[in-house]
Amino acid sequence: MGPQSSSTFGEVSPGRLEAFSDGIFAIAATLLVLEVRVPEGDTPLLGRLLDAWPTYLAYGISFLVIGIMWLNHHGTFVRVRRVDRGLMSLNLLLLGLVAFIPFPTAVLAANITGTGRDPLTAAVFYSTVMAVNALAFALLWLYLGRHRALLAPESEPDAPERAVRRSLAGVVVYLLLIPVAWLSPVAALIGFAVVGLAYLLAERRLGASPQPSAGADGPA
Amino acid sequence: MGPQSSSTFGEVSPGRLEAFSDGIFAIAATLLVLEVRVPEGDTPLLGRLLDAWPTYLAYGISFLVIGIMWLNHHGTFVRVRRVDRGLMSLNLLLLGLVAFIPFPTAVLAANITGTGRDPLTAAVFYSTVMAVNALAFALLWLYLGRHRALLAPESEPDAPERAVRRSLAGVVVYLLLIPVAWLSPVAALIGFAVVGLAYLLAERRLGASPQPSAGADGPA
Amino acid sequence: MGPQSSSTFGEVSPGRLEAFSDGIFAIAATLLVLEVRVPEGDTPLLGRLLDAWPTYLAYGISFLVIGIMWLNHHGTFVRVRRVDRGLMSLNLLLLGLVAFIPFPTAVLAANITGTGRDPLTAAVFYSTVMAVNALAFALLWLYLGRHRALLAPESEPDAPERAVRRSLAGVVVYLLLIPVAWLSPVAALIGFAVVGLAYLLAERRLGASPQPSAGADGPA
Amino acid sequence: MGPQSSSTFGEVSPGRLEAFSDGIFAIAATLLVLEVRVPEGDTPLLGRLLDAWPTYLAYGISFLVIGIMWLNHHGTFVRVRRVDRGLMSLNLLLLGLVAFIPFPTAVLAANITGTGRDPLTAAVFYSTVMAVNALAFALLWLYLGRHRALLAPESEPDAPERAVRRSLAGVVVYLLLIPVAWLSPVAALIGFAVVGLAYLLAERRLGASPQPSAGADGPA
Repeated sequence: MGPQSSSTFGEVSPGRLEAFSDGIFAIAATLLVLEVRVPEGDTPLLGRLLDAWPTYLAYGISFLVIGIMWLNHHGTFVRVRRVDRGLMSLNLLLLGLVAFIPFPTAVLAANITGTGRDPLTAAVFYSTVMAVNALAFALLWLYLGRHRALLAPESEPDAPERAVRRSLAGVVVYLLLIPVAWLSPVAALIGFAVVGLAYLLAERRLGASPQPSAGADGPA
Repeated sequence: MGPQSSSTFGEVSPGRLEAFSDGIFAIAATLLVLEVRVPEGDTPLLGRLLDAWPTYLAYGISFLVIGIMWLNHHGTFVRVRRVDRGLMSLNLLLLGLVAFIPFPTAVLAANITGTGRDPLTAAVFYSTVMAVNALAFALLWLYLGRHRALLAPESEPDAPERAVRRSLAGVVVYLLLIPVAWLSPVAALIGFAVVGLAYLLAERRLGASPQPSAGADGPA
Repeated sequence: MGPQSSSTFGEVSPGRLEAFSDGIFAIAATLLVLEVRVPEGDTPLLGRLLDAWPTYLAYGISFLVIGIMWLNHHGTFVRVRRVDRGLMSLNLLLLGLVAFIPFPTAVLAANITGTGRDPLTAAVFYSTVMAVNALAFALLWLYLGRHRALLAPESEPDAPERAVRRSLAGVVVYLLLIPVAWLSPVAALIGFAVVGLAYLLAERRLGASPQPSAGADGPA
Repeated sequence: MGPQSSSTFGEVSPGRLEAFSDGIFAIAATLLVLEVRVPEGDTPLLGRLLDAWPTYLAYGISFLVIGIMWLNHHGTFVRVRRVDRGLMSLNLLLLGLVAFIPFPTAVLAANITGTGRDPLTAAVFYSTVMAVNALAFALLWLYLGRHRALLAPESEPDAPERAVRRSLAGVVVYLLLIPVAWLSPVAALIGFAVVGLAYLLAERRLGASPQPSAGADGPA
């Protein structure tokens, strides 16, 4: 375990911080299921199970988003060789926001359908939290861009710029889903799922970028 | 930690992905207990504790199933030397389904006995989710079978075929328990327990297969 | 990570199994807090917080017991060099029982005081689950005693006997607390705490035993 | 993994104990979100989401505090080379107190605003639990100061004194927030956040101390 053995008295090693962060990602993703519930009622169970589809959709989307954020986090800390206090604080902010995701998920699941519910507010709240998460990621990489000594020397020279660009693109996409939610909250949910899957399967993710030597990001 | 040190910028290492997955398996298994509850009531506690036996049974079965899935997952990633995006996405799908198991377990526990309950629907729902889990496992190994470069060179040549076969057998067994549930939901539950224990103790599991040199799967 | 690197295709490595088990111990211990609740009510919050003392006591005792079981588990797997299917199944049984502990803890906390509660049944149920846990530990070491090839060659020759003896002593102590609960459930609770603390601080625990060369267990 | 490989039969290795402890810190921090809830009601969701701000604040503060405690714990065990029974017991006490934090957080979140609530008692209870946590940390370092053979030889000679001093300063700060809560519970909450952030960003934390060779604690 190379990174961990480079730990000194003065700093948290990247390996240790990543292991702690991994734990939080895994727990946050798994806690999502606690918000999946069938409403009690006198109607047949089958109908109640089927009517709970927004809950399953919200679970799936949030699990996907947390999984993607874990990948990006991993892609980040593979490139980090030293953790200073600023990076650690920004990482703690990011983790606090990731661990918060089960809450807007529960709000969304409870409000996406049904009479007297407020799907629009729920979808906007959900989108906002996700946008703030992406923003925290951008902040973390902005910091890395200004403190390049923290990055491994073999990491791509434009890694911070690309990561910030991608994170801000995430912020924009999440905010764009807000007016979609205005038209149809369910459409916004489906938009979330599509964006997540597209991202997961897309070619040039940072976490799956070509080797440093092949740093070209396209002709543009 | 061999696998982890082979991590490159471009990919998640199998060791890292397995550690993250292990976390989700462990948390999902442990969260099951949160669904074990004694109904409130004026009747004596002892009676309520005894009447809650389906809850304990559902807990035990789901814990057993998640434990077996963890073993199979471990048996899988011991054979993986490289993780590409497709494998990672399929693994994420599998983890999302594993982490979902506490929900059908809770539905089952709440509906297996009692008046006004619907044990049949609950058992069918439970069986279906388990079948989908086994299907996700089959998909993962189908993918590995078509991308053999991801497998360690020492792994058995027929590992993908055997794993897919076993996973599909799991799908069939879980689906066969649906008509059993039609006759008796409790019998289906016991069927789950028996299948799980038999699997755990059976000889030729992939995760406990003989060394690669002894790849024969029997004369049949 | 020595043990892990000795993992083969055919078996789960002790290191891997211990890491997975550690996760379950840590999660089970931390989930205990979810059962700590202040009753809603119109009475002042301070009074309700103070009246909830049995909840805190139950939390502390169960946390202590799980911590001790983790220590014993660690003391076990430090001595294991190979995991076969039987050991893995017995370990899974043990983990399932450990992860179950939050439930009797919640029952105990909810019933130890208050009118219309049933502290005796709750204490007996708690004691029984703990005795079964200790029994599972005894089973695991009985198995190791009969399959000494699974043990590291440097482990003490009498390790299985001593561990089985200690585990069975735990079973007896837990069962002895049942008649104590008959007299006074609170006294039984305090008995649990005292036994746990004594065990933690006692001299000759297996997990803190002298080096193999000093294997004498006393003149008796 | 250096520390782990130095594990002997007789003791828990610092690496193993730290990994187990990390799990409990990560889980406790992530469980906090389960206490974030929007009150049910007929009023618009937006208003209920906004009115729940004390819940978010309590979540953020407790996440921050647990994060800082994790850092301090890491800064502690980097300096430990051997774990004896006393250290392990004190660590278990500390972990039990850390894992307890979600409970006072929930009490605080539920009582900080609203009619018929008791914000003062909630804030005092929260402050007290935090002070006890800091006290447990002081105890752990007091123990290390008296058993210096447990510390790595390269650790700073005054590490125990400095850590005890800092922990007791934490106790004092937390207790000072009690009279603040008397004047205004919300001000006490903000005080918690400010203290936490200041601590996180402050220069001379133990976990981020200069290398052992530069042990001077300032000219003052």
